[in-house]
Amino acid sequence: MKKLINSPEAVVTDALAGVAAAHPSLAVDVENKVITRAGAPRAGKVGLVSGGGSGHEPLHGGFVGYGMLDAACPGEVFTSPVPDQMLAATKAVNGGAGVLHIVKNYTGDVLNFQMAAELAEDEGIEVVAVVTNDDVAVQDSLYTAGRRGVGATVFVEKIAGALAEEGAGLDKVAAVAREVNERSRSFGVALTSCTIPAVGKPTFELAESEIEMGIGIHGEPGRSRVPLGSAHEITAAALDAIGADLPLSGDLLVMVNGMGGTPLLELYVVYNEVAKYLAGQGARIARNLVGNYITSLEMQGFSVTVCQLTDTLTRLWDAPVDTPALRWGR
Amino acid sequence: MKKLINSPEAVVTDALAGVAAAHPSLAVDVENKVITRAGAPRAGKVGLVSGGGSGHEPLHGGFVGYGMLDAACPGEVFTSPVPDQMLAATKAVNGGAGVLHIVKNYTGDVLNFQMAAELAEDEGIEVVAVVTNDDVAVQDSLYTAGRRGVGATVFVEKIAGALAEEGAGLDKVAAVAREVNERSRSFGVALTSCTIPAVGKPTFELAESEIEMGIGIHGEPGRSRVPLGSAHEITAAALDAIGADLPLSGDLLVMVNGMGGTPLLELYVVYNEVAKYLAGQGARIARNLVGNYITSLEMQGFSVTVCQLTDTLTRLWDAPVDTPALRWGR
Repeated sequence: MKKLINSPEAVVTDALAGVAAAHPSLAVDVENKVITRAGAPRAGKVGLVSGGGSGHEPLHGGFVGYGMLDAACPGEVFTSPVPDQMLAATKAVNGGAGVLHIVKNYTGDVLNFQMAAELAEDEGIEVVAVVTNDDVAVQDSLYTAGRRGVGATVFVEKIAGALAEEGAGLDKVAAVAREVNERSRSFGVALTSCTIPAVGKPTFELAESEIEMGIGIHGEPGRSRVPLGSAHEITAAALDAIGADLPLSGDLLVMVNGMGGTPLLELYVVYNEVAKYLAGQGARIARNLVGNYITSLEMQGFSVTVCQLTDTLTRLWDAPVDTPALRWGR
Repeated sequence: MKKLINSPEAVVTDALAGVAAAHPSLAVDVENKVITRAGAPRAGKVGLVSGGGSGHEPLHGGFVGYGMLDAACPGEVFTSPVPDQMLAATKAVNGGAGVLHIVKNYTGDVLNFQMAAELAEDEGIEVVAVVTNDDVAVQDSLYTAGRRGVGATVFVEKIAGALAEEGAGLDKVAAVAREVNERSRSFGVALTSCTIPAVGKPTFELAESEIEMGIGIHGEPGRSRVPLGSAHEITAAALDAIGADLPLSGDLLVMVNGMGGTPLLELYVVYNEVAKYLAGQGARIARNLVGNYITSLEMQGFSVTVCQLTDTLTRLWDAPVDTPALRWGR
């Protein structure tokens, strides 16, 4: 295992110390693994908390800041954070208007966020949870009952964060979060595996000419293993899978996301194929992201996430954001 | 070779078509491989042009936009662009105030930019070239006479771009570009090789427990091959090499750059080590970047670049920028 770490045990806390050193706009509790916006809580503002296993950076800590999340709690690599972390984050960002939990649909995350919400409510904090489940690849998986929550989480955090920044109440912020999730679908492809530091060997093996279609963000199996095709063929298969579940028409927000080890050059090759495919369907990519936003350590591959926009969602997407990983308009 | 491409021959033009589709703020001539800011040239503004082999994305095309480059010309992967591309870019951004060429010190790039400058001058366009050569690892290499130009190029493009945006003349913009280069040093480390699409096999081989200290951005050899150490040890060796050449004191701009295949989690582990090392020297990291800015395809590893700031350089660094890969304050 070749990694830039000091020890498998220290990788998350060392990285959090790095985040703290790099971003003075964040307050990082390294020991308890909670990242909050400096100056939290904000009186009267709905607080947004997300979290999940580490190894998906910049998700979620890189999305803490103005117009997006108020706090993130990272677990160990590919391991849910514990309810105590989530509770600490919830209390830290409660400005009296309630707190939204944005939870990717993995069994551990869902259960732990439920427990944290109950603990927070015992302390008089109103909590609503929205669970993302946008991955069309498989119905159940090693980590999940139902669909997995993947790239749509980035869209939910951005758009719900913008509405909360405008001063909307908890019900409305939760409603837009649910709406974004319902309007979004994703599909992922792996060219290589990744290695969890504490495990020390690749999560799975792929032959030299083989790729995994429908990969999960922890390397959990997808739909099928197929021979490596062209970017055109792979992208078409991914969008066919999405299109079977969501009409690919109208104005779309599209993310071509790198899994962590994919050159940006290749992500733009894929984006070009996505743009051509969607144009062929009569859809319009109104907004886009191309880059590493929800990763799986050093895995090579990509995922594509599509969201059907409305005028309101577009306006909230365009609203100013100022986080380590997304920044515009401010 | 596992890559998300359609063919090795088409990878650069396919990616450029993707850049064109993703970024309406850019005008992309896919056939001639020139990326310019939409609306170029700007009358009275010094134009900034850079370029070099592809495979280092987001450098340079991702840095075209307000407050940074006016144009970029990408060559084939790890291959210099040709003088005709550079000339086309120069003419496209000449607003009558002259054009600055920002050139990484690789023999092909330097010669081709020289030829392009002569051709542009034949057409009455004043051109000044600034060559970056910040890599302390080796004096000469496979691609270079003298020091290689690497991460400082990002700093030069940002800071000279800000001064040009303010309306400064060509001499002043060139002077600040030279100053940034002179005040900057870099050192790179590879954990793995990368594969040039047209070659189809890794550029070099490293044993499972071996890393290359002082790697170049094309995979050209560095100083030594050593056993994989801890992030603490590797970072200290990189900063020792820089510190032997540049006093590590005062206010510094520091970039911890991923080579393309390194998880962001690990880059933050490295950044934490960099911050501790520099604090131990009594220096202050006044500004920083952590992420993929000048890459080598899917290579795993990192580079660290340090620039001694002045008040003026800090002000120009903080000035608004609006490009695909760097965006703030606007």
